[in-house]
Amino acid sequence: MSDPKIVTVRPEPDQFAWTFGGVPPLTHIKPGTVLRLYTEDCFAGRVRSEKDLVSRVCEFPFLNPQTGPFYVEGAEPGDTVAVHFVSIEPARDWAASTTVPLFGALTSTHTTASLQEPLPEVVWMWELDRARRTCLFSARDSGIQIELPMDPMHGTVGVAPAGLEVRSALVPDAHGGNMDTPEMRSGVTCFLGVNVAGAMLSLGDGHARQGEGETCGVAVECAMNTVVIVELLKGVTTPWPRLESDTHIISTGSARPLEDAFRIAQLDLVDWLNRDFGLSRLDAYQLVTQAAESPLANVCDTNYTCVAKLRKQWLPAGTTHRELHRQLRETASLIPA
Amino acid sequence: MSDPKIVTVRPEPDQFAWTFGGVPPLTHIKPGTVLRLYTEDCFAGRVRSEKDLVSRVCEFPFLNPQTGPFYVEGAEPGDTVAVHFVSIEPARDWAASTTVPLFGALTSTHTTASLQEPLPEVVWMWELDRARRTCLFSARDSGIQIELPMDPMHGTVGVAPAGLEVRSALVPDAHGGNMDTPEMRSGVTCFLGVNVAGAMLSLGDGHARQGEGETCGVAVECAMNTVVIVELLKGVTTPWPRLESDTHIISTGSARPLEDAFRIAQLDLVDWLNRDFGLSRLDAYQLVTQAAESPLANVCDTNYTCVAKLRKQWLPAGTTHRELHRQLRETASLIPA
Amino acid sequence: MSDPKIVTVRPEPDQFAWTFGGVPPLTHIKPGTVLRLYTEDCFAGRVRSEKDLVSRVCEFPFLNPQTGPFYVEGAEPGDTVAVHFVSIEPARDWAASTTVPLFGALTSTHTTASLQEPLPEVVWMWELDRARRTCLFSARDSGIQIELPMDPMHGTVGVAPAGLEVRSALVPDAHGGNMDTPEMRSGVTCFLGVNVAGAMLSLGDGHARQGEGETCGVAVECAMNTVVIVELLKGVTTPWPRLESDTHIISTGSARPLEDAFRIAQLDLVDWLNRDFGLSRLDAYQLVTQAAESPLANVCDTNYTCVAKLRKQWLPAGTTHRELHRQLRETASLIPA
Amino acid sequence: MSDPKIVTVRPEPDQFAWTFGGVPPLTHIKPGTVLRLYTEDCFAGRVRSEKDLVSRVCEFPFLNPQTGPFYVEGAEPGDTVAVHFVSIEPARDWAASTTVPLFGALTSTHTTASLQEPLPEVVWMWELDRARRTCLFSARDSGIQIELPMDPMHGTVGVAPAGLEVRSALVPDAHGGNMDTPEMRSGVTCFLGVNVAGAMLSLGDGHARQGEGETCGVAVECAMNTVVIVELLKGVTTPWPRLESDTHIISTGSARPLEDAFRIAQLDLVDWLNRDFGLSRLDAYQLVTQAAESPLANVCDTNYTCVAKLRKQWLPAGTTHRELHRQLRETASLIPA
Repeated sequence: MSDPKIVTVRPEPDQFAWTFGGVPPLTHIKPGTVLRLYTEDCFAGRVRSEKDLVSRVCEFPFLNPQTGPFYVEGAEPGDTVAVHFVSIEPARDWAASTTVPLFGALTSTHTTASLQEPLPEVVWMWELDRARRTCLFSARDSGIQIELPMDPMHGTVGVAPAGLEVRSALVPDAHGGNMDTPEMRSGVTCFLGVNVAGAMLSLGDGHARQGEGETCGVAVECAMNTVVIVELLKGVTTPWPRLESDTHIISTGSARPLEDAFRIAQLDLVDWLNRDFGLSRLDAYQLVTQAAESPLANVCDTNYTCVAKLRKQWLPAGTTHRELHRQLRETASLIPA
Repeated sequence: MSDPKIVTVRPEPDQFAWTFGGVPPLTHIKPGTVLRLYTEDCFAGRVRSEKDLVSRVCEFPFLNPQTGPFYVEGAEPGDTVAVHFVSIEPARDWAASTTVPLFGALTSTHTTASLQEPLPEVVWMWELDRARRTCLFSARDSGIQIELPMDPMHGTVGVAPAGLEVRSALVPDAHGGNMDTPEMRSGVTCFLGVNVAGAMLSLGDGHARQGEGETCGVAVECAMNTVVIVELLKGVTTPWPRLESDTHIISTGSARPLEDAFRIAQLDLVDWLNRDFGLSRLDAYQLVTQAAESPLANVCDTNYTCVAKLRKQWLPAGTTHRELHRQLRETASLIPA
Repeated sequence: MSDPKIVTVRPEPDQFAWTFGGVPPLTHIKPGTVLRLYTEDCFAGRVRSEKDLVSRVCEFPFLNPQTGPFYVEGAEPGDTVAVHFVSIEPARDWAASTTVPLFGALTSTHTTASLQEPLPEVVWMWELDRARRTCLFSARDSGIQIELPMDPMHGTVGVAPAGLEVRSALVPDAHGGNMDTPEMRSGVTCFLGVNVAGAMLSLGDGHARQGEGETCGVAVECAMNTVVIVELLKGVTTPWPRLESDTHIISTGSARPLEDAFRIAQLDLVDWLNRDFGLSRLDAYQLVTQAAESPLANVCDTNYTCVAKLRKQWLPAGTTHRELHRQLRETASLIPA
Repeated sequence: MSDPKIVTVRPEPDQFAWTFGGVPPLTHIKPGTVLRLYTEDCFAGRVRSEKDLVSRVCEFPFLNPQTGPFYVEGAEPGDTVAVHFVSIEPARDWAASTTVPLFGALTSTHTTASLQEPLPEVVWMWELDRARRTCLFSARDSGIQIELPMDPMHGTVGVAPAGLEVRSALVPDAHGGNMDTPEMRSGVTCFLGVNVAGAMLSLGDGHARQGEGETCGVAVECAMNTVVIVELLKGVTTPWPRLESDTHIISTGSARPLEDAFRIAQLDLVDWLNRDFGLSRLDAYQLVTQAAESPLANVCDTNYTCVAKLRKQWLPAGTTHRELHRQLRETASLIPA
């Protein structure tokens, strides 16, 4: 893989996808392709000042635009697509966050329905210092300012779902989608089970940073210039999205109530240890119980997402995903900046 | 506080408490007292080999023995008791974990009821190397062994509950109790709201280490020699247990479903920022959304427990809990080993 | 049982119990005793006009006073106490309902926590016409009045809990307690598993009527003159409260999330059919699936309660609870009014 | 409406729809059209004996075939489609039910994930006596037989969803779909909010009868000959599916956890009383609390469904849905059998 093909994609405004599934491919790519992508923020770039309330400037369902879908040649149901994040860089020196009426963890919603008034709709504009790699929070009701480290990530990465379905880009589920985990940062490989021919991979929803749980429902939302390598694992199934970093193997689960998202992710980690690392399921259950890290991803979206992580240094001998993560790290190091 | 009073407590087998509330005090202590405690493991020390199945050697409700309760002189409803963990040291060179029929996250239970057969009952004996500070996992179904770092903690710390109630030591709720968070380690101060005169503080359930979520329901269970300093904050309310480390302020919530535990902990963190650090509630909501760490504590007990953490270096100027954590760290450094 | 003993109990204000467990017996009774009881309403009689807001006139934890506990002679763990409701009659010609801040199904609460403002606190006074057996609703914000049928019931019936616990009278769980099901009306027998010597039976929380789910958290609350017969089934276990009417066998489950309350009640109904009516568990699962009625009881209390009912006319041949319900109906018919 | 147009539709095997949305219309109809429909059972007719296990004879996602979609001329987003059930008659003298691995309320599932073994896969064949209107249950593990009343209904009725989505016919949500409520019987009108031009109405999943909650996940599944009248209410929004019978107004909610389905349905009933019957929202909250019936629909599907019902005789003066239900009852009486 000394000479990967590099494809640059910057969608026109009318070229974004708003769903996983149900959209013709933006382009076809071969496994091994390097994609240099532009992704728009979840507001389609319409929240640009404190006056730009989502309820006024955005129009449902045109939220969370996705760059894609990419038809991965050769991908078929039963295979796994791998997306290695080479780099995720904010495309602007500002980002936005907001409250959204009846959306978020600390408010009633359209499903956790109540008779109470919605919270006020407020916009926070964040200043990004790309040289110093910081995000500056400015309080709205006081002069307080706080500088946080930049930690860019993609909230949404996914493929077309199974079962003939088309899902909004706001939904996380077994096909990936809007998982909103800060683990989806550069240096990580994301593995997604293929449900339809070509997989139909899309991504978007860049966050300059995000806390675990994405409490108010909206992160530090930012357009991104992102480089990924897309690969294909033929004949490898992946029931729920998995990630791999240099230090951890990482399972995810998305469901409601939140304990079900936990159960899915933890069971997937048990099955991962069982399939690739030689532990019986009960022994894996014991090891996961004592060794897993379980940071929340989102507790605000239509499904909630849990992460279950295990340090590689604690794994029994074994190989997983045909050592693709290590190979992609090497390939990534060869890509010209 | 150059000369704190030191009290040593090693309960006789018939002196342990099995509930929070409903038990006369083991002893009275003054605020500022250093307690050198012995705590028994959650099995009351009865699981000592792979043959000691919980269903055979333990007898409900005599699970999770607590050392206490301590009547803290001067503590009244509306105050807060602080428990600073000076050290938590395994009292044995082994620890035990098990599956328990119809208990744990990856099985049906008495409330998440199903018609399926329970999982097999299995015991894992862990070897503790206290010099090297490691815990050795030995798989039951293969020869695999894995060495994990020791990270001792207390699963259970609490006071008598409000509302005239008496709760099993297996329950986590607003009074603390069986929260099972790995954050409860040495160097940390735990703050608990007082509900009855004397607070009636107890603790137990030492774990040589535990993953986040305590998936199978049982950690690396171990008797402990633990040193704590107990202090009292008069006139400070603490609705849900809080922790403070040198690096983080930490809220907890315990409830079902798991998203409610999340909501409680995150809202408490918002209110903490609002009360002690000068942010409006909506500004605090935004900061928490982008900066909180949200590791799970337990997803197996009668209530599930979530943690919400914020790095102190990112806090606005302010003081909390009258700077008691810093003072207790200093006091702790003066205690003879 | 031609000459049952009749005991009349009208507690003084300081004699009510506020918990299940943790209270000495009000009196000892023999199995077969007829109790003529007075129960106070859940507000301890303090909400008497539209001006009597709960937050002002009531004081936590002195809510939901219980008449009892009754020590049932001979009752031991492993037995079942039966409470047959001969009659439940409103003791006044008015009743009260209210919203309570951060309590109820259509508001955020202390555990389903949000940043929103609580709903307004409002009292509705209901007129009861005991001759016509109607309850008159008068809207607060318009002149609308609606007459509903009276259907008196007890929201709270229970025994001391297992596991050394003491629970608030506001809590429903395996010991019964605040289940808030409209099925608990006259003509019905309630079966409760005994956890401690004497069972320690209490009841209260009369409702002139209540919808299924008790949406706002408060029914048409009313003091009651109630007649029950208390019996004892030696050697019969009852893990979760059961009811029996002339037409139905009825299981209950109390838990969070609500689906767990459903699971408990439905599994109990399956096990009931299996133990007493000769169906295998899977056959019972099928029959319950096609024949059960599943009205909600409460979706507002600390645990939610589901009911699962099956018409007796559809049951296979068999006897249950030693035909006690039929006997108690006969005994009841002999009691002088 | 003295001469309604009657359209007869019996789809060929390759003409069924497997999703809501994403399918071209089977035919266009004008408002007021009478549809004489054939619907296939949820197994696509493939389970015909006790040997026909779903895991062998059915192929995901080809489950729950829908008859439709019907493009209702003039229907636009913001309108409401009304489906009046004139008659629902079993098309065969047998019906089938089954357990399905990792599906149902009393088993772990793909999302309420556990390490336990799935339940055995069992088929029950039911005999339908269409003259006597009974369903005969035959136990598999004993000679027990039980005759239950026939009470035919449609588990699945819906329109294309909002937000560009396509949902499996197994999913209930705001667009209707697989709600599985026994209330969907003949004599009832179902109101569905329109999300796309033409509404794209489909229905299927006939049940000869079903208990409330559909505990094992599968009812008495049966092909049906069904007659409906389809009408259109221009300019009337319906956020969640509503039903109206001669005796009740009925709201539904579909979500997880189950308490959210409850909240949606109860809030919709409050808003219904507020919009059409003159009560303030808080007065409506009080009336619903004391008067609602809340039978469960399903606690097994991808979303759970709750029903909230109110007797019409207890409603304040008012009209709803432009009195369409009454008109359709009259029209129905004129249709030749």
